[in-house]
Amino acid sequence: MTRPTRLPSFDVYEEARVLITGGLGFIGSHLAKALAELGADVTIVDSLIPDYGGNHYNVREIKDQVRINYSDIRDPWSIRYLVRDKDIIFNLAGQVSHIDSMTDPQTDLDINCKSQLALLEACKENNPNARIVFAASRQQYGKPEYVPVTEDHPLVPMDVNGINLIAGESYHLLYNNIYGIRTVSLRLTNTYGPHLLMKHGRQGFIAVFIRSAIEGRDIDVYGDGSQLRDFTYVSDAVAAFLTVALVEGTYGNAFNVGGLEPISLLEVAKLCQELAGMGGGVRTVPWPRDREKIDVGSIYIDHTRLAAATGWEPTVDLRAGLSRTVEFYRDHGEHYWS
Amino acid sequence: MTRPTRLPSFDVYEEARVLITGGLGFIGSHLAKALAELGADVTIVDSLIPDYGGNHYNVREIKDQVRINYSDIRDPWSIRYLVRDKDIIFNLAGQVSHIDSMTDPQTDLDINCKSQLALLEACKENNPNARIVFAASRQQYGKPEYVPVTEDHPLVPMDVNGINLIAGESYHLLYNNIYGIRTVSLRLTNTYGPHLLMKHGRQGFIAVFIRSAIEGRDIDVYGDGSQLRDFTYVSDAVAAFLTVALVEGTYGNAFNVGGLEPISLLEVAKLCQELAGMGGGVRTVPWPRDREKIDVGSIYIDHTRLAAATGWEPTVDLRAGLSRTVEFYRDHGEHYWS
Repeated sequence: MTRPTRLPSFDVYEEARVLITGGLGFIGSHLAKALAELGADVTIVDSLIPDYGGNHYNVREIKDQVRINYSDIRDPWSIRYLVRDKDIIFNLAGQVSHIDSMTDPQTDLDINCKSQLALLEACKENNPNARIVFAASRQQYGKPEYVPVTEDHPLVPMDVNGINLIAGESYHLLYNNIYGIRTVSLRLTNTYGPHLLMKHGRQGFIAVFIRSAIEGRDIDVYGDGSQLRDFTYVSDAVAAFLTVALVEGTYGNAFNVGGLEPISLLEVAKLCQELAGMGGGVRTVPWPRDREKIDVGSIYIDHTRLAAATGWEPTVDLRAGLSRTVEFYRDHGEHYWS
Repeated sequence: MTRPTRLPSFDVYEEARVLITGGLGFIGSHLAKALAELGADVTIVDSLIPDYGGNHYNVREIKDQVRINYSDIRDPWSIRYLVRDKDIIFNLAGQVSHIDSMTDPQTDLDINCKSQLALLEACKENNPNARIVFAASRQQYGKPEYVPVTEDHPLVPMDVNGINLIAGESYHLLYNNIYGIRTVSLRLTNTYGPHLLMKHGRQGFIAVFIRSAIEGRDIDVYGDGSQLRDFTYVSDAVAAFLTVALVEGTYGNAFNVGGLEPISLLEVAKLCQELAGMGGGVRTVPWPRDREKIDVGSIYIDHTRLAAATGWEPTVDLRAGLSRTVEFYRDHGEHYWS
């Protein structure tokens, strides 16, 4: 892979025909907005499963500039039609709750494996020239043997979601290698920002921290809170998606999308309370037994490979990103709380 | 893990209640026979999918000593019932054709992922004390970075079958680590012997070689035939299954089940022709384009970890094993050719 001196120009997205699965969700909706502003012809696919991240309010600013197609990616026939004539597919639809993957593993498998394979088969049959960017997760690594975790770290996930994401990612890379469909996978770390699902706490702790802080409640941190994590602000994640789709050298590969500096959970919780300023505190509490088994300790990821291949780097630091996020939910929380 | 000085005693299988999924197939039927002879209470589950390995003739000698239940592991309800009250489950049912996994990836996924998850969920609900041995494959490694391949080698399979087997294996190990269901996975290399499917050539080259030799036809070897492979005679594979189920230290782990010495494909082909003595020759032919893409070059696996954990070692060399196999098909071929 060559090292570009700067990011590729996003001008080529003008009039590009783009499909975004999960486009009413957290990252998908920001991606849709960025693409609409770049002049792309955007089709969103979303099924609005109640407990998932899809929310009409996420596309309030662009609803007249994008086409919204209500469909579940588990329906192979509609997907088969929808992938036709698209230049680029941002494939973000998925079951993303680690907890739900343990209580209902078959649904996780249907969405994260079966549907992904169907989408790839649809492209193979109907649109082999499409480029596809898949949203994967650092969850795939499991408990790290070393940090920061590189893409070569063993994949030993500690939940069904991680196992299925590996399969979903592997199908994408295989279809590149065997059938020449240009695919690339982004392994996202904790991504945050406006539009994050807030209805429940099963999609990750950062939403719980932010909501508790805004509502003036104490934040409970499991263990001693010293576990390190990294965070990507959503605009940086969007830039990563827009970038990799355009860089030939990325196809057939998986890349970590990380953050600036790792920080302990305790510090993140304190920062949320400070920025919200609603008087809530931070408590450390013992691990619940069912959570302790799937705790991975400190984990943060190395995005050197993506930086080298594309020039992408995260730019928004946690204080700035969380500040914008808290402000967003203060103003718009009513559309997210339930 | 401790190094045992000898294999565990198989006496404990007397009256053990054992379920064998895929028990009418190649390895499953040999395992059923061994267990029946040890006095186990054996239930076989098999759906006799026409192109798969299940064959009534495989259990001709034990049909009055085992219970045969015709069911597809994709049917979660019958499996849910069948796992109850079993001490040990040898989980060998699967789609094993790499080629078929590319032409019909969804069926491969249903059998190798969805069904495995359903079986594990069934055990979690109805029989958490069962021990489960899963049949995995060295196919999971893909093109090797080094040989012999150890269990720590990256898993980068080159076909859908390999991706789905990784998920199937990972579910098993996860259910051990999270729910305490004692599971172990065996990654089998080229396993051969009587009862191997001979109806078609989509389950591996060794069956094609043996059948061609017995029928006096030339054997075509792709490329220059220098690619190395290892082989396990079926009685050695059966011993590995019987052994790991009994050794506590193996649970939650995956182990390679290898052979004695690697040998080139050209030499294997010549050996088949020599043992069959029907006058067929060996030709090297260029790689077909669709096969070349999924060729992994030389590969053979290291079973040091299994030997250290259990004392298991392969014992039957390729000449002896192939000689018995050729003799079997000379006498019984009519039950396998179509």
